[in-house]
Amino acid sequence: MKKILAELLTIGDEILYGQIVDTNSQWMSVALDKVGIKVIRKTTVGDQEDEILTAFAEAEKRADIILITGGLGPTSDDLTKPLLAKYFNCELKIHEEALAEITAFFKSRGREMIELNRQQAALPSCCTKITNPIGTAPGMWFEKKACLPDGQGKVFMSMPGVPHEMKKMMTEQVIPKLKATFHTPSIYHKVIRTIGIGESFLAEKISTWEKALPEHIKLAYLPSLGEVRLRLTGFSDSSTTIESEINEWAEKLKPLAGDYIYGYGDEPIEVAIGKMLREQKLTLSMAESCTGGYLSHLITSVAGCSDYFLGSMIPYAYEIKMRQLGVKPEVLQKYGAVSEATIIEMANIVRAKFNTDIGVATSGIAGPGGATPEKPVGTVWIAYSDKYQTVTKKLQISQDRMINIRMASAAVLNLIRLSLPK
Amino acid sequence: MKKILAELLTIGDEILYGQIVDTNSQWMSVALDKVGIKVIRKTTVGDQEDEILTAFAEAEKRADIILITGGLGPTSDDLTKPLLAKYFNCELKIHEEALAEITAFFKSRGREMIELNRQQAALPSCCTKITNPIGTAPGMWFEKKACLPDGQGKVFMSMPGVPHEMKKMMTEQVIPKLKATFHTPSIYHKVIRTIGIGESFLAEKISTWEKALPEHIKLAYLPSLGEVRLRLTGFSDSSTTIESEINEWAEKLKPLAGDYIYGYGDEPIEVAIGKMLREQKLTLSMAESCTGGYLSHLITSVAGCSDYFLGSMIPYAYEIKMRQLGVKPEVLQKYGAVSEATIIEMANIVRAKFNTDIGVATSGIAGPGGATPEKPVGTVWIAYSDKYQTVTKKLQISQDRMINIRMASAAVLNLIRLSLPK
Repeated sequence: MKKILAELLTIGDEILYGQIVDTNSQWMSVALDKVGIKVIRKTTVGDQEDEILTAFAEAEKRADIILITGGLGPTSDDLTKPLLAKYFNCELKIHEEALAEITAFFKSRGREMIELNRQQAALPSCCTKITNPIGTAPGMWFEKKACLPDGQGKVFMSMPGVPHEMKKMMTEQVIPKLKATFHTPSIYHKVIRTIGIGESFLAEKISTWEKALPEHIKLAYLPSLGEVRLRLTGFSDSSTTIESEINEWAEKLKPLAGDYIYGYGDEPIEVAIGKMLREQKLTLSMAESCTGGYLSHLITSVAGCSDYFLGSMIPYAYEIKMRQLGVKPEVLQKYGAVSEATIIEMANIVRAKFNTDIGVATSGIAGPGGATPEKPVGTVWIAYSDKYQTVTKKLQISQDRMINIRMASAAVLNLIRLSLPK
Repeated sequence: MKKILAELLTIGDEILYGQIVDTNSQWMSVALDKVGIKVIRKTTVGDQEDEILTAFAEAEKRADIILITGGLGPTSDDLTKPLLAKYFNCELKIHEEALAEITAFFKSRGREMIELNRQQAALPSCCTKITNPIGTAPGMWFEKKACLPDGQGKVFMSMPGVPHEMKKMMTEQVIPKLKATFHTPSIYHKVIRTIGIGESFLAEKISTWEKALPEHIKLAYLPSLGEVRLRLTGFSDSSTTIESEINEWAEKLKPLAGDYIYGYGDEPIEVAIGKMLREQKLTLSMAESCTGGYLSHLITSVAGCSDYFLGSMIPYAYEIKMRQLGVKPEVLQKYGAVSEATIIEMANIVRAKFNTDIGVATSGIAGPGGATPEKPVGTVWIAYSDKYQTVTKKLQISQDRMINIRMASAAVLNLIRLSLPK
């Protein structure tokens, strides 16, 4: 079965200069992927006539569908519309229905309409107008038939760059029209989330499984700080077959990487931990020293966390560890703030003081200062405490302050996952 | 003077599928713009041999500098390195210095090194290795001389896709090397940092100043959550003239926007606050409820913050506010946790308990749950307390949890700036 290929073309100097981040193309990729259209390239060019015309021609050679965003505003630096007219060799004419829609748009908002806005109704005569219900720039759908030997045509679709206008137009009109025009295959993705193992070690552990994957199922490694996600992608004519086939391969991974797998799909570790705590009706408190609030921030970034998270202490200074948290002075003096003895005290004390089921703690040398020969930058102690056990772990992370903070926080979340009562 | 043109090439199926947002290319655009290199195109292709090789060839035709990210991991879906070797017609060989660096990297972290990691030291023999001090994939710098009539060569530079590795490599090695290789124009940038005013309000305040700017000095508004940075860019053959000219224009801005300007250049507000506290020998503690640790994280993201930051309490639950922090039950019951009376107590108590010069506090409805008719999502109270005064502020931010957390944290940092003893 022939794959339907799309290219995303973004037009605008503001993206090339880095003044805005292009989030549209990620959203469009996901939307197209869901209906089995394969994005083969993303291109961004500036507001330059020759650059834009070249990009049209190159994209037409590669892809069946060319989705264009940006350059549709009313001002003179917006070139997409006149250049599409030029590329398709037809003239710009006021589109009466588009003009009526734009007029109604302004009327409904009680705003005056100026000539610049009227010109937004001028469209290339060879395109099909796509209504923009929440903005003033209509979309434009162009078809080139018989460009390919099999007679299947090419589609150019131009949309506004304003994210909510583009999304509404894509969802309600463009995607259905693309599905009707092209015969799209079934695609199924499954993301397997792992934590606590590096990419290359994971690859080694699962290499026989990876080698045995059939040709039509692809594997990708998606690493981020502390985590590696594995993405399986399958192509098929039948969506039910490929879904169950991929789920079988995911099952086969469990004996090889089971300890590291914490979830599937879009849920990060802090959401997974939240679900575990809520299900088991357990409460959590934390004493954060070197992570300085980042760990609490991860936990409280999850809506509804007040069901299980009661609070934290950040005893950053030595005297706060002693006087406010209540770590014994003799422990601090004998072993130092970055030590197993101190971290055990911190986790146990915060759990008792905050009256929670679980207490966790961090203490380390985030850097760049504060290191000693025995405790170099990146040395971090973490601890988990509940009524059954206290578990500690020593980490040696990196020279970079932010990486130490983020990796230590990820390690604590993983420690909670592994230590919770079964 | 000839403009130096760059193309950014991102390699990875995960970006085409929309599973990650490419933030690298925006960061790179800004970094290149600063040194007068013009980005003319951004291209993303998948992990496909023919697509990647075609993209190399196309980019070489258009640009002087081709900056490549992604596809450098140790696993088999990473194709950038073998394809660069193929494109430049040379073989992959273990680079002894790279191998020593990778070995040292693993040793410093006390981690075992496997064959896959060793293979990361295999580099195309025709490239110059660029050290990756915080990761295992080295960068690769390729030069093609005499590709252009004027004899100026082309540079291909391949970097890891991991953002912090790419950024460190770009900043410390690639940008200086590009400046040395190409004759870049004299550009002077000055970034003026403002906080506490929205983009359109600021634009209105400074419109006469903006209109009076000469042709060769450009202004850009760079808004982010809670802040707007103004960037002045001047182009000239003489760097000293343009520098003093831009500084004069920046001075003229002070009478118009002085209250909102907190600094210049790369220093975010948390660094500016840290300097003010250190200079005045003042100490800080915080009681964070709705910001949940993010405010403490901002403060502790600054190296050396232990000079002025002693610690925080995150009394997320009602009973922790009462029992651990010590807010009077009658205040909480009468006014609720999100109220001026409670926020005053929180700031004063944390200052007294932690024995610091300054105490700040946050309490609000981050959302999506927890709202009442009088206190909708986005209602946040913040307070500042020192021995002279207690200052409070009520904010009404947004419907979005993360935006509420980040904007409230920025507002507290601004409140500290405005309230510190003069």
